[in-house]
Formats: sequence, structure tokens, C-alpha cells
Amino acid sequence: MASTLEKLAEHVDGKVFGNADVSIDSVATLPNAKTGQISFLTNPLYRSYLATTSASAVIVNEFIQDADNVNQLVVDNPHAAYARIAQVLYPRQKHVAGIDATAVISENSRVDASASIGANVVIAEGTEIGKDVCIKANCYIGRDVYIGDDTLIYPNVTILDEVRIGQRCIIFPSAVIGADGFGHAYDDGGWLKIPQVGTVIIGNDVEVGSSTSIDRGAIENTVIEDGVKLDNQIQIAHNVRIGENTVVAAGVGIAGSTTIGKNCMFGGMVAVSGHIELTDNVVITGKSTVTKSLNQPGSYSSAIPVESSRVWRRYVGRFKRLESLFKRVTDIEKTLKENKD
Amino acid sequence: MASTLEKLAEHVDGKVFGNADVSIDSVATLPNAKTGQISFLTNPLYRSYLATTSASAVIVNEFIQDADNVNQLVVDNPHAAYARIAQVLYPRQKHVAGIDATAVISENSRVDASASIGANVVIAEGTEIGKDVCIKANCYIGRDVYIGDDTLIYPNVTILDEVRIGQRCIIFPSAVIGADGFGHAYDDGGWLKIPQVGTVIIGNDVEVGSSTSIDRGAIENTVIEDGVKLDNQIQIAHNVRIGENTVVAAGVGIAGSTTIGKNCMFGGMVAVSGHIELTDNVVITGKSTVTKSLNQPGSYSSAIPVESSRVWRRYVGRFKRLESLFKRVTDIEKTLKENKD
Amino acid sequence: MASTLEKLAEHVDGKVFGNADVSIDSVATLPNAKTGQISFLTNPLYRSYLATTSASAVIVNEFIQDADNVNQLVVDNPHAAYARIAQVLYPRQKHVAGIDATAVISENSRVDASASIGANVVIAEGTEIGKDVCIKANCYIGRDVYIGDDTLIYPNVTILDEVRIGQRCIIFPSAVIGADGFGHAYDDGGWLKIPQVGTVIIGNDVEVGSSTSIDRGAIENTVIEDGVKLDNQIQIAHNVRIGENTVVAAGVGIAGSTTIGKNCMFGGMVAVSGHIELTDNVVITGKSTVTKSLNQPGSYSSAIPVESSRVWRRYVGRFKRLESLFKRVTDIEKTLKENKD
Repeated sequence: MASTLEKLAEHVDGKVFGNADVSIDSVATLPNAKTGQISFLTNPLYRSYLATTSASAVIVNEFIQDADNVNQLVVDNPHAAYARIAQVLYPRQKHVAGIDATAVISENSRVDASASIGANVVIAEGTEIGKDVCIKANCYIGRDVYIGDDTLIYPNVTILDEVRIGQRCIIFPSAVIGADGFGHAYDDGGWLKIPQVGTVIIGNDVEVGSSTSIDRGAIENTVIEDGVKLDNQIQIAHNVRIGENTVVAAGVGIAGSTTIGKNCMFGGMVAVSGHIELTDNVVITGKSTVTKSLNQPGSYSSAIPVESSRVWRRYVGRFKRLESLFKRVTDIEKTLKENKD
Repeated sequence: MASTLEKLAEHVDGKVFGNADVSIDSVATLPNAKTGQISFLTNPLYRSYLATTSASAVIVNEFIQDADNVNQLVVDNPHAAYARIAQVLYPRQKHVAGIDATAVISENSRVDASASIGANVVIAEGTEIGKDVCIKANCYIGRDVYIGDDTLIYPNVTILDEVRIGQRCIIFPSAVIGADGFGHAYDDGGWLKIPQVGTVIIGNDVEVGSSTSIDRGAIENTVIEDGVKLDNQIQIAHNVRIGENTVVAAGVGIAGSTTIGKNCMFGGMVAVSGHIELTDNVVITGKSTVTKSLNQPGSYSSAIPVESSRVWRRYVGRFKRLESLFKRVTDIEKTLKENKD
Repeated sequence: MASTLEKLAEHVDGKVFGNADVSIDSVATLPNAKTGQISFLTNPLYRSYLATTSASAVIVNEFIQDADNVNQLVVDNPHAAYARIAQVLYPRQKHVAGIDATAVISENSRVDASASIGANVVIAEGTEIGKDVCIKANCYIGRDVYIGDDTLIYPNVTILDEVRIGQRCIIFPSAVIGADGFGHAYDDGGWLKIPQVGTVIIGNDVEVGSSTSIDRGAIENTVIEDGVKLDNQIQIAHNVRIGENTVVAAGVGIAGSTTIGKNCMFGGMVAVSGHIELTDNVVITGKSTVTKSLNQPGSYSSAIPVESSRVWRRYVGRFKRLESLFKRVTDIEKTLKENKD
């Protein structure tokens, strides 16, 4: 949806240096942009592309003197302004209201007339689907579920009984919300299933990535608060609670009954133990392992980057002989002390 | 399904201290329980809630003298008794026998009249579905599959040709059973696909979590024995065998042709190499890496818990200079020896 | 599809020692093979089975003098020859051309008459499905997608708008191709969604495993080149590029904008950071963490194998006291120097 630089600038409360009347119809990276495209500069490494870009405009956080070949849109936060402008240029496709003829909807459920229900969607009894919700093909929505207004659910998603999802959420394909938590009690040489009688409560503006699993609570509920963004292939176990606006990269696993604070950030493939608490504003870098509660905000890590396999094998060998090294140093210290005495 | 404490006590072979006639209709945690609810105490940290709980009963493993405000149900194994009682209070929903009108079932397959086949389920030829099996919406069941009595299959599951699943299993949404193992041979600068001609054999009372993959065997079969419980997002490669009653937490990956013993326990996100054997009763703690066979029962680990990122970077730096430290200590020992001589 | 050893030998350009007329109908492992079956020997550990095998033939890379009980097929590359022979004995099931009555296909899409479209498949407008493509039940194919000739798509796969997939690809169940990359900009205390306006381009002869996610590009495209093989539960973030014939084992995560070279090999559960480059012919062993670009071919590692948990806890304790040990050794060296002076 094309616009002018002037209108886009108004939308993001920015100031134009150059030709505000230029027409903008799409976004591009600085090196590959063409006429009619807008780009943004946040990474200083890309600054050199300014001189040669064919973009019709670039979003920057202060006017750049020596780049008068390109129209500049100056804003406080170029990344956020880029997001808002891209939302204008690429509006979310308008869903056609109505229920596909092949969908199987229980008579006892309530689907708002403005909602769009795709082919082969199955909705069980007692479920309520809000205004302008879009559920794409081949999803299954269980019994007594609630889906808030403007939520978008991609194909092949499974949402099981009693789950509640807020407004403006996006659930990506093959996500599974509300399957049983992993609860078994050992007895008589085997495992007894423990019924998982809680459910999953998801706030507003939450994203759930492809093939991410959010298990229902064992007794009480699993809770994902407003504004949380979950990437793909994340495992959220029963009774986890994740605080507002926390973002979690792909492949993270959070074990049962753990509580995560607000505004936390998780790198990919982090493991978090069960029954612990992480306070607000905690950052865990990728591939780390968290086994104890963290009461202080800040960044935490425990991954070791690769070395050549040959060198790495020596490292591991040394690591496993550390105890002997400590002993040798203690012996040396003793000898030196004896020599001195 | 409400009951009395007396009847529940009989069911779990326990002894009531207090009012055995009290009505119990649901479960709750100790701090949040209300009248009519039963809770359990296994974690000593929760003992303090005994004095203030409003639960109508609590399951304990010995009578607690100073908690006469609450009815006590004394059993040997409170966790197992809780599981059995919750199974009574929350019976599995009875499935309605019959085949949904939208299901697509091959004429050459055999579905028991007591089975429940959901909307849009597709079942290919030669497949046999046992008594009281429930297959929920949008599942695909391939050719010549066998599904044993009382097995429950959640929506959007894919089970491919020739897979055999035992009785009383539960397969959670988006699980994939019987896709090709990852087998390719390098030749002439590219990869040749190796046909995966084995299948997957799953015993009785097995659980397979959401988005878990169990690949079919390359030549012989991949085998999951009775009572195995697999959590979400687990990868079981071709020709793996997992022994009875082993439990595997979410995100574990087990590479091809590895054999796991009975009664093992895997924490989350453990990696296990291919072509090795783990004996019975092995415990692997979360995020560990197993590269060699383990012939002794016991607990094994290799994950390092997080530190602040600033401190961690120093740790990694020291780690990568360990070789020089070993050399320095050797030099010191030599010097001391020379000094002594 | 049975054959004779002679015909199979011709097919792989090999030489028969023994009876070339023997009939071969299936494959088996050396220890379990029976009459009519062919096996192969690549692992020297299995050599002892040669004397006792009942196989009708075995594929080897040079004639073995003391194994005249079994017909030998000598080839340069037994693994590749096995793959080719298994492809002959187990030809891919021929798909029946045509569109299942329950499929929902947009009038504006184009499905080749030779393609096979399974039950409940949904195909949106503007999409083109090539010759002999097979799309199995319950898949969703979005708008303006292109699927090349002879590609096979298993059930419950989701392919979103504008994705392009080449010829002879195999997409396994529950894979998700073209969902939004994980892109958000922080502003005013919350996260703004950044529209992901690129797509995914997949070359020829690519495999995508079960529940693997390949996200669409943020601005430009995510690209998977010809011959790449991706195992199950892999996460490919936005704007990643993977070079020809690279193979990636299960559970690997590759973060955004990273470029992987040709002919690389990734062990399972490896994590790769975003915005880095790995050159051609890089091997990353299982469970490693790659945080920086790798400019040299070769093998890289960073996983530490398990020890008993009791010993491991000591290791971790020593590791976290390494800094003090370095200091102690420095102090000793100073003392020795002073003693000497």
C-alpha cells in the first residue's frame, strides 16, 4: 500500500530531510533498495551503503551530513519506525468473514459473524471465537476454548479444551496449546498418569511460533502474560508462568512450575530447570543452562563456543584433569611454604 | 466425579485420620485448596501450608500430629495415591463411538465399531483400528498401520505406513511416527537417498508428546517398549530402541541405532549419540551430552549452569588457556625439583 | 521389486564374485539376512558376520577371500551402491494422479493433471503445482506458492504464501515453511511486529524433516540451495542461506541472517548464532555452539561428554574456581623468581 515519505514521517513522528513528496511503496535493504523503496540504518556496518543506495528514503536516528544523495527520515528509534512503516506498506491481509463450508463447528460453540474460519477447521462445543478472529485451514479448537478478538491462527494448529487466548495474538502453524503436562507417578514398577486438570491462559498480543508446545497445568494453570513473544519449537511445561513482554528465541525449553519475570530475553536453545524463579529483566544468552533461581536482573551465560575438534578434545582432556592440577598446585604451595620455613 | 474420602481411601489402600465421610470433588494445591478439594504433601517446603489449608483432605505418607485441622489420608506413596485419586475425580472423557461424516477411511481398512474417528481423519488401506480407540480430528493414519485397543490419538498427528502402536497409548498433537530416518549416502558430489524400509513398533501404555518425531528404521525397526513416556519435541532417530518404563523429558534427541535400557530417566534437551548402548536405570540430567555407551546404572551429567555473562566470558577465557596453565605448573614442578636436587 | 544379482551389479557398475543369477528381493542386515536378501559391509566390526550370514549377496568394496560362502558384489562405494540397489528393490510408491474429492483448491491455482492431491488438502489462490507432485492429506499450501515437479509432501505440512520449492524435494509431516521470522522492535515498553516481507526459496532435491521450521525472510529471502538435507525439528530463522549439499542433523537451530556454505555437515542439536558466515566444508559435531564466523574448512566442536553426576559436580566446582588457580600459579611463579633473584 504505497504512501509518501511525508505521510510515513507523520505516522512515526519523524522529520524529513530531502524530498518529502517522494512515493514509497515497499521496503528493502540499503544495498539492494531501488526507487520507491525505504530502508533503515541501525547497524553502523551498513553506513557505507548510504553513499551508493538507490533507496528513495532511509530511516536514521540523526541527520547524516554526507549522505545528501538519499532522502532521510530522522526518528528517535529507527528500528521501531521501520516496523510501523512496514506495517503501513504491508497491511495484514484482510480476512473474509465467514465459515468455510468444510469446517466442522459444534452447534454449541459461538463464532462471531466477523470471524473467518478456514477449510476443515474443527471447533468443539462450548467454544467462543471473538470478533475478526481468523482461523486458517485444518486447525483443531477444543471444547470450552475462548479466542479473543483479532487473533490470527495459522493452519494445522491444535488448541485443546478450556484454553483461553487473548486479543491480537498470532499462533503459527503446528503450535500445540493445552496438551497434557508431563506428569506421572512411579508405582509398582510402572508410571501412573497424573490427570492434568489445569489449562493454559494466554494474554493479549502474544505470539506463539511454529511447532511450539505450551502444556496445560497439572492442577493450576500455565500462564503466558500480555505481550510475550515465543519463537518456534519452544517447550513450555505445565504450570510455567512467563511475565509481560518477555521474548523467547527458538528451541528454548522451560521445565515445569518455573516462573519467568517481565521483559526477559532468552537466546535460542536455552534450558531452564523446573520449580525456579527468574526475576524481571533477565537476559539468558543462547544455549545456556539455568538450574537455579536468578534474583538479579542482568545477562547470564553458560555456553562455550566451538574450537577446532582437535583442539577441543585437548580442552576436554585438560578439563577432566583439573582436579589433579588443583592438587599439584596445592602440593607446590606446600613445598614452597616448607622451603621458606 | 465426586466421591467421599472413605471411598478414595479404599481405592488407594490408605487410612483416614479425621472425617472419612467428607465429600471430595476435585484436586487443588495445598495453599489454594477449598472445601471439597483434596491435596497432597510430598515436598517438605509445603508443610507450612498444612496449618492454613482449607482443603477437605490431604494425602500424606504418615499421620502429622500438629495438623488436626485437616482430614489426613495416609498412604505409602502420596504421589501415586494422588494420581489414582485424580484419575477417579477426573475420568477420561468418554468418546462417542462412530466415524465422523467428514473422515476419509479406506474401504480396505478395519475400524472397530467401538472406536471414535474424528472429523477429517484420513485412514489409508489395510489399517486396523482396535476397540475403543479414539482418533481426534485432522489426523492422518497411513497404510497397514495397527492401533491397539484404548489408544487415544490427539488432533493433527501423522502416523505413516506399517507403524504398530500398542494398547492404552496416548499420542499428543502434531506427533509424527514413522517418517523416514535420515539416511543418505554420499556419491558423485551429492547425496543419494537410502530407502528406509523398517518401521516403528510401539508397545502398550506408551505416551508420545506433542511434535515428537519417531523415525522408521533403515532396515530393521525402531522400537519403543511398553510403558515408555516421551515428552514433547523429542527426536527418536531410526533404529533406536528404548526399554520399558524409560521416561524422556522434552527436547531430547537420540541418534540412530542407539539402544536405551529399561527404567532410565532423561532430563530435558539431552543429546545422545548414535550407535551406543545405555544400560538399565541410567539417569541423564538435563542438557547433557552422551557420546559413549554407559554400562553402569547411575546418574550422569555434563551441563554447566549459568553465571553472569561478564564472569562467564572470563571462565571461557581461562578454560581455553588451560593447556598453558598445565605447562606452567609442570615447569614449576621441574624448577622445584632442580632446586631441591 | 525383485531382481537378480547380475542386474543389480550392472545398475551400480559392480563386479559379482559367485552366482550372479541369484534372485534378490529385499535388503537386510548381515546378521539377520535370509535367502533372497542383499546386505552390505562398510563397518569392519560387522566383518565377522560374513562367515555366518544367510544373505544371498553382500556388497563389499573389495573381494574378500575367506568369505566364499556368500556371493559378493564388489563396488567402489558400498554405501552408495546399497542406496541405489535399495531404490530398485523398494521403488517409491506410485501416486495416483488426481485431486481427492475433499481437497479444497482455489480456482485460481494451477495443479498439473499428473499431480496427486490428498484428502482435505487446501491450496490457496495463485499457486502452481508441478508434474507428478504428490501432496498427502491435510496439508495447507498458501497463496502464490510454486511446487516443482516430482516433489513429495507428507501429511499435515504447512507451506505459506509465496514459498518456492524445487523439483524432487521431500517435505516430511508437520514441517512449516514460510511462517514469519521472529522480528520485533522494542518501543514504548512493548514489542512492535516487523512485517516479514521476504519468503523462502528452496532448490531441487532438498529434504525437510518432520516438524522442521523454515521462516520467511524479513526483507529478502531465506534460501535453501540444491541438495540440502534437513533432518527433523530443525529451526532455520529468517534470511538464513544454506549452501548446496549441506546436511543438518535433527534439532539444530540456525539464527537469523547466517550464511552456511556448501557441503557442510551439522551434528544434532548444534546452535548457530545469527549474522555470521560458515565457509564450505565445515563440520560441526553434535551439541556444539557456533557464535563466530568460521573461515576455514574442518571439524569444530564444543560439547563436553557426560561423567557421573557426582564427579561432574566436582568438575564444575573446579571450573568455576579456575581464576583463583591461575592467580595461585602466578603467585608461585613470582615467589620462585624472587627466590632465584
